[in-house]
Amino acid sequence: MESDVVEMKLSEMNKETLMQFLADCKAEYAAFQAENLKLDMSRGKPSPQQLDLSMDLMDCLKREDYKAENGLDCRNYGVLDGIPEAKEFFAQMLGVDASETIIFGNSSLNAMYWAMSVAMTNGVMGGKPWGQLPKVKFLCPVPGYDRHFAISEFFGMEMINIPMDENGPDMDMIEKLVAEDESIKGVWCVPMYSNPGGVVYSDEVVKRFAALKPKAADFRIFWDNAYCMHHLVENPPVQANLLEEAKKAGNEDICYMFASTSKITFPGTGIAVMAASENNMKSLKKSLGFATISYDKINQLRHLRFFGNKFENMIEHMKKHKELIAPKFAIVENTLEKELSDLGIANWSDPLGGYFISFNQAGCAKRIVSLCKEAGVVLTGAGASFPYGVDPQDENIRLSPTFPTEEELQKAMNVFVCSAKLAAAEKALAE
Amino acid sequence: MESDVVEMKLSEMNKETLMQFLADCKAEYAAFQAENLKLDMSRGKPSPQQLDLSMDLMDCLKREDYKAENGLDCRNYGVLDGIPEAKEFFAQMLGVDASETIIFGNSSLNAMYWAMSVAMTNGVMGGKPWGQLPKVKFLCPVPGYDRHFAISEFFGMEMINIPMDENGPDMDMIEKLVAEDESIKGVWCVPMYSNPGGVVYSDEVVKRFAALKPKAADFRIFWDNAYCMHHLVENPPVQANLLEEAKKAGNEDICYMFASTSKITFPGTGIAVMAASENNMKSLKKSLGFATISYDKINQLRHLRFFGNKFENMIEHMKKHKELIAPKFAIVENTLEKELSDLGIANWSDPLGGYFISFNQAGCAKRIVSLCKEAGVVLTGAGASFPYGVDPQDENIRLSPTFPTEEELQKAMNVFVCSAKLAAAEKALAE
Repeated sequence: MESDVVEMKLSEMNKETLMQFLADCKAEYAAFQAENLKLDMSRGKPSPQQLDLSMDLMDCLKREDYKAENGLDCRNYGVLDGIPEAKEFFAQMLGVDASETIIFGNSSLNAMYWAMSVAMTNGVMGGKPWGQLPKVKFLCPVPGYDRHFAISEFFGMEMINIPMDENGPDMDMIEKLVAEDESIKGVWCVPMYSNPGGVVYSDEVVKRFAALKPKAADFRIFWDNAYCMHHLVENPPVQANLLEEAKKAGNEDICYMFASTSKITFPGTGIAVMAASENNMKSLKKSLGFATISYDKINQLRHLRFFGNKFENMIEHMKKHKELIAPKFAIVENTLEKELSDLGIANWSDPLGGYFISFNQAGCAKRIVSLCKEAGVVLTGAGASFPYGVDPQDENIRLSPTFPTEEELQKAMNVFVCSAKLAAAEKALAE
Repeated sequence: MESDVVEMKLSEMNKETLMQFLADCKAEYAAFQAENLKLDMSRGKPSPQQLDLSMDLMDCLKREDYKAENGLDCRNYGVLDGIPEAKEFFAQMLGVDASETIIFGNSSLNAMYWAMSVAMTNGVMGGKPWGQLPKVKFLCPVPGYDRHFAISEFFGMEMINIPMDENGPDMDMIEKLVAEDESIKGVWCVPMYSNPGGVVYSDEVVKRFAALKPKAADFRIFWDNAYCMHHLVENPPVQANLLEEAKKAGNEDICYMFASTSKITFPGTGIAVMAASENNMKSLKKSLGFATISYDKINQLRHLRFFGNKFENMIEHMKKHKELIAPKFAIVENTLEKELSDLGIANWSDPLGGYFISFNQAGCAKRIVSLCKEAGVVLTGAGASFPYGVDPQDENIRLSPTFPTEEELQKAMNVFVCSAKLAAAEKALAE
């Protein structure tokens, strides 16, 4: 279903060519609408085939296998921060020491929410509760993860957009802001294969984060390493470790780090891990003791059995995910390349890992999402990757290729590129 | 190991008899100390034998059994408030409609903490966040559950002790206080087999709670029905339903209700449920959507399979718990009766269910707990059942008979009654 237009930039088309181009797009679009499609590429969900990779999780824990290595009965209450072997195992995801971890339930988002809510009600390491301050500001590298921004908005924080480039957030801006303004209490980061940009923060950026000297002593980097294991290439990038660098900089209390197995085993019943310095851990565990007695230790055991207690097995397991999803990323990128590159109307990411392709077409994001929706293709809402849902350039769309089948995805992408062209032509003619 | 004292009240002994009595107690105590005991009856934990009752939970969910009745893939993200059949099933624990529930993870304490933290940061159903008020007060029927009081203390609330009798908290006092003082935002209740008193709130008390007219519109009853299934008798009491009564009183938004399977299946990997009115649910679910994407739906399925999706099976299952723990309660009560009743120094509860026996000996609780500790028997700390850990009469001790073996328990109780007598004699001689 390719359009017949000549291979030239949209900006170089004269009005007549543009009108013909728009007419062609509209005809193509009408044909899609007639198909009554129902396709969803809105969220970063693993496909059923990916979940099938972890089916052993369902029955790998045997009936009598309920004791931790130290003899602890995992069926019962106790052990707030996770059984020792789970701490050892999952610490490796974040490259930290087991003593620097808390093992949570199935949601690292829930761990982040909790850490933020404790900061709001009880402060950070003895500091004043953020909820008692006249104003709390949070830095938000954009485009970013909507659920991060939603937590900050829920707690009434003022969010400040920080532009990103291929190396990560604008560190000049961040350093300047945090040095001047004590009401800035933290920053949301997805340092590896950022959501949605796919950016791998450079080592320089990681080190500058590690060395940040904020005016607020209770400033914390919320370092959501959701995709630290989620590579799409054979030889993935290796990133400097934030906590390690922070220690070198004598700044080890600056960060909270998070990861989970949500997109490794099952999102519904995975394991989340948080890591931070000894001082932070002491304070966090004290607070956590008011919030629960223990998380699901049987599921911690189950995950250890699934991975045979060998971290290399998790790395190998992720290669199977790659085999399933890399072709889907290729479908998205090939379709975008083939249908849009000559037109010069948009750009998009070519990530080495993670779950998203970030697509930018200035002034057209809302229109494209709306056109897709009317043709039966649900995308993440335009603006979702910005605080308050406001994309200043109305340009960014997050594409999530993992959940649909390859066939569905190709169909959805055909609708998408048609909508992108249609929106570009409308915009050009209106200008 | 019985003492040789005459069967008379301690208060009727003359000084000489008292001194002999104390000497006998000390000798008996010294003998216990020489045994180097190491016994723990500090927490309400199920015993390994009780956990063994639920071993099928380990493998009842088969490998391919990961779909909800509506076809939803429970392995993946989604369904914030629980799969429909889990809502249906666990709603029965609290006697509510499925639509009035949220299914949480393995900890109802965590659900309570979360509900309270949301009230602190974002208010209750549109009300002002409690954390922004100059003062928040919470009513605490005493003796009560230390972890409830700890949550209120963590959030900086002022706790007000409410006396309890055999029908529940002093409702005259509660009605008067809440009608006058808008800063009183709620009350902690364990309505059935209260922790530690074992009190079953009378229907009149339940109805008076349901009809409360607090000055604060955002006042909430935190109704922790932790022991609603935990009967120690053949024909357990039936209690009026708070939400149902609140509806009758046109007051349905007054309460949050909680229960869990922690002491039914496995504390480490159970299911918690919260129930509230439609209005509350709407507001709570909106807030919960910021805190997580979904709880562990696979474990919801696992519990449904374990109980064969039949609530009667849970009731039958609890009878097996009763068979294991009723003899332990009998050991405690028989030992107390035999060794202490004639002396008139103490009183204790004779609960029809729950996990505790509440023991009272005025002015002696700290001393008894300390004596037991020095003889190798760990009890819940004296004062733990009161806000701020302060028992005004220094009288209450929570006895938790479920975890030790019967043999250990008998030994621990021998030490306990010896310590109680010793403390009573010391006190009488000092007066």
